[in-house]
Amino acid sequence: MRTVRYELLHEDTATSARLGRMITPHGAVDTPTFMPVGTGGSVKAMLPEEVESTGAQVILGNTLHLMLRPGHALVKSLGGLHEFAQWPHSILTDSGGFQVFSLKELRKITEEGVAFVSPYNGSKHMLTPERSIEVQEALGTDIAMAFDECPGADEGKAYVVKSMHRTTRWLDRCIAARTQPEKTSLFGIVQGGLFEDLREEHAGTLIERDLDGYAVGGVAIGEAKDDMVRVVQHTTRFLPKDRPRYLMGVGLPGDLARGVSAGIDMFDCVVPTRNARTGRLFTSEGLVIVKHAKNTEDSRPIDENCGCPTCARFSRAYIRHLWMTNEVLVHRLTTMHNLWFFGALMGRIRAAVKDGTLPALTRELVERWG
Amino acid sequence: MRTVRYELLHEDTATSARLGRMITPHGAVDTPTFMPVGTGGSVKAMLPEEVESTGAQVILGNTLHLMLRPGHALVKSLGGLHEFAQWPHSILTDSGGFQVFSLKELRKITEEGVAFVSPYNGSKHMLTPERSIEVQEALGTDIAMAFDECPGADEGKAYVVKSMHRTTRWLDRCIAARTQPEKTSLFGIVQGGLFEDLREEHAGTLIERDLDGYAVGGVAIGEAKDDMVRVVQHTTRFLPKDRPRYLMGVGLPGDLARGVSAGIDMFDCVVPTRNARTGRLFTSEGLVIVKHAKNTEDSRPIDENCGCPTCARFSRAYIRHLWMTNEVLVHRLTTMHNLWFFGALMGRIRAAVKDGTLPALTRELVERWG
Repeated sequence: MRTVRYELLHEDTATSARLGRMITPHGAVDTPTFMPVGTGGSVKAMLPEEVESTGAQVILGNTLHLMLRPGHALVKSLGGLHEFAQWPHSILTDSGGFQVFSLKELRKITEEGVAFVSPYNGSKHMLTPERSIEVQEALGTDIAMAFDECPGADEGKAYVVKSMHRTTRWLDRCIAARTQPEKTSLFGIVQGGLFEDLREEHAGTLIERDLDGYAVGGVAIGEAKDDMVRVVQHTTRFLPKDRPRYLMGVGLPGDLARGVSAGIDMFDCVVPTRNARTGRLFTSEGLVIVKHAKNTEDSRPIDENCGCPTCARFSRAYIRHLWMTNEVLVHRLTTMHNLWFFGALMGRIRAAVKDGTLPALTRELVERWG
Repeated sequence: MRTVRYELLHEDTATSARLGRMITPHGAVDTPTFMPVGTGGSVKAMLPEEVESTGAQVILGNTLHLMLRPGHALVKSLGGLHEFAQWPHSILTDSGGFQVFSLKELRKITEEGVAFVSPYNGSKHMLTPERSIEVQEALGTDIAMAFDECPGADEGKAYVVKSMHRTTRWLDRCIAARTQPEKTSLFGIVQGGLFEDLREEHAGTLIERDLDGYAVGGVAIGEAKDDMVRVVQHTTRFLPKDRPRYLMGVGLPGDLARGVSAGIDMFDCVVPTRNARTGRLFTSEGLVIVKHAKNTEDSRPIDENCGCPTCARFSRAYIRHLWMTNEVLVHRLTTMHNLWFFGALMGRIRAAVKDGTLPALTRELVERWG
């Protein structure tokens, strides 16, 4: 039996969207799903049950952060990340690759892997396919991501081909490094840049490895929206229907709807949590900026159509006051609201897939949120 | 009928301690009680129901902070502080006097009141007895404190007498300024420094005003512990048994027990909340410093004898990790723990008063916490 199973429940006729159920060692996940980011072992400002209350059934942990602080060996000795952070549901970890690439001057890429310097204390580290799997298994994640190279959006085809082949070699090293496949599944990442023939080729290469799920890599950052959608749509065509598909680092409400329309089942993004901490709130009426003066005396909730605990009780005036006086409570109230918005949004998207109304919802969301 | 009533339920024979019930327009409070400090409209990092879960039945709001930000007129227009902060239980506000005196170079004291400059934006303000009452009534507090002058602990008797008489004149101006006595009660503050005759005289002066409650002022800061206890013990002797007595800005666990033994019913202090935010946690085994290296791999809770939600689930190792990585969640976990400790401590103290074992508990707490 697969470590992570995917049950296809419904296929849209108007789009490539589908409804499903993903079952991991820590429970079931209704897909399409949005995964809040729990960077260093907590979804910032939130308790586990609060994250759960927003509808989230799986969260993302960052391998790079956790291997540096507090260290994966420590997390393992304390029972793994689920126990450490008291999150009883599913966890997906990234490979650390994307984050280590983003260190820029602090890293060097070779065939072996990526050498880098810790931004915290200057200590030297090496992240390789084997190391990434070792860390993710130590964390006890349900879904490990393969360690891949993600070429820049402006790279020419020759480099993208070269990088794609390296990603395949690294994937094979990840597969060989696995020691607990019954506990930690492995998702591969389809690369190939904006080149449709390369996407098809790489999807085929990954499918031969018969993995538990597949991600579409290298499309979230830097590409124009239409290119992103085109590449995702093109790639999912070649992926097996009985495996979950994951679009990493996406995204805004319109992007989620477009991703689902293109056949994606899983998303993660820091947008709801990070925007909450910068006072930018998603509402049914558009973006609300907490600090704006017009909120000063406003007794209405952030969103009159929202059922979250923040909107149930607290006024815009109170939330703005907490913001202006740097009261730490504000981060809880805003994060709860934004995560609730994203949870409810995924519910609307799933309902629209079922009702055949996803195209209309997608237009609405893209128009409002870009 | 009084705005705030006090029912004396039990008097200790070995000490001056007593058990009671204080009833305010927003509910009953079991005394002796500890009031968490909700400085600027929130008990830092906590939701109202979390504060309530620690056993707190009344919280303190800071008049100076709230009049400057967001402004008492705004709070009033939004339904008052209870509604604004969604705290449905009792609220006591300080007069702003103590905080404005502590501005040092930024303030000037005259018979009229205290002129001061806002530390936030340099704007000029005047706090007077009338203004203090106006602000506290606008906030809709259940218990307003009289605007008093608090002389330094090192002042000579001549100045203390002069200051005490000014405090009485200011009290009479506070009384005259009241517009909603059925909603907002007024507590007077007994001054008189370390001079027993002055304390007796001033207590008598206040009792003539027949106020809803009495505070013992000017003893929390700077005095030696034994002097503090002596003055409090001496002062409560002259206070009526059917009114609550409040010791402002106290304190550590041993101080609470000593204050109760000296006949005090109410306390407030930033110690549990502020120490939580500096990673200093109260436990049944003594102080735990979150960041200490010995917590790095410790799977035990902060306090194995604690029933708080933090100790029920999270390890010292996890809390230390959150601390070391500046995760905002840590302030919630530590604040909840410390407030729970103080709530449970007051429960132990009340039980000891009932059982006649307060002297033994006081010795234990003073020995451990000073």
